[in-house]
Amino acid sequence: MSRIAQDRAVRTREALIISAAEIFDEFGYAGAGVTKILERAGVTTGAMYFHFKSKSELATAVMSAQQQSIEPPQGSHGLQRLVDITLVWAVRLRTDPLLRAGVRLSVEQGSFGLQDATAFLNWRDAIVECLDVARDEGDLLADADPHAIAEFLVGACTGVQLYSQLISGREDLLRRTVGMWRMLLPGIATPQARQRVLLDADRGYAV
Amino acid sequence: MSRIAQDRAVRTREALIISAAEIFDEFGYAGAGVTKILERAGVTTGAMYFHFKSKSELATAVMSAQQQSIEPPQGSHGLQRLVDITLVWAVRLRTDPLLRAGVRLSVEQGSFGLQDATAFLNWRDAIVECLDVARDEGDLLADADPHAIAEFLVGACTGVQLYSQLISGREDLLRRTVGMWRMLLPGIATPQARQRVLLDADRGYAV
Repeated sequence: MSRIAQDRAVRTREALIISAAEIFDEFGYAGAGVTKILERAGVTTGAMYFHFKSKSELATAVMSAQQQSIEPPQGSHGLQRLVDITLVWAVRLRTDPLLRAGVRLSVEQGSFGLQDATAFLNWRDAIVECLDVARDEGDLLADADPHAIAEFLVGACTGVQLYSQLISGREDLLRRTVGMWRMLLPGIATPQARQRVLLDADRGYAV
Repeated sequence: MSRIAQDRAVRTREALIISAAEIFDEFGYAGAGVTKILERAGVTTGAMYFHFKSKSELATAVMSAQQQSIEPPQGSHGLQRLVDITLVWAVRLRTDPLLRAGVRLSVEQGSFGLQDATAFLNWRDAIVECLDVARDEGDLLADADPHAIAEFLVGACTGVQLYSQLISGREDLLRRTVGMWRMLLPGIATPQARQRVLLDADRGYAV
């Protein structure tokens, strides 16, 4: 494929994922028609099938693209970076269609016969990366296991956003995320690290 | 209504909820036909409509009935009772259709247009009850808020079971639940209470 054709293919794929996310976010999996997605993306059926063989493949791609929406405040690293990622996530989950659709599909996937843990494992790996830095810097308790903490966090965040969605349409998700860290930090971080880590809700809006 | 007719109505309602749970657990909401549920329950359409006007009302009743499946070890109370409830939950979620369907429908309800927090709020209230006892016994840290902890726990457990389901078909859920408590207890319970609380996975099987 020529460079120009390659660029076009990448753009088409991106447009399909974004449009699919918007439609999935609005209508859910069952209500999302492929025709609607193609119209929104301005893409032909043939072009879609070059990238995705089915609506289910599109849903899988949307689920896997969640992390593209998250950019934690520059310069933060280790434990602070992990906290920041969750705060930004809590804010963006209220407005970003790619993130909203990814989370919605991940949670509801059983209803359309999927069982794909990829998005959860991607989050786990991103969290382990932060926790490994935190451990190297001496910020974690001696018996804290980055892998186990990361798996718990992925589950906990998934459930907390679902609870928040049912109770408040996610209006209180940022506050709940801060509260989660207040409960969790004593079990994973050293007292020194806990004093240093900033839990201001404002950080969820930082770039 | 005579006493006999009342008893029969209660039994019919119970049979419908149990049968609906079995069918929802197996086929999900979309795949669960009302005819299948009626056949399984041995109930006529007319008898069903006396109790439930629609499949959606049946689903709501199944979601709300989750706690009927949980009986923690006798004699445990306060913080230990709360831990025990989650361990029994982790075990029974592998086999009990009423619990499995309740949790599945609660998580997937967005896919069929429901937004019903009742089951989550029932869990929250049951947890607050245990935590209030724990607080009265001096087992909680001074700044621990039973209501906030309970809301976080409902979300966390919901997400952890979903993660466990995707990774292992819930085979590792009991282990993950024990791990959750090891991470959480330092943030909510006094050192004395933490030493006393038993986290043996075996307690999930106790009656």
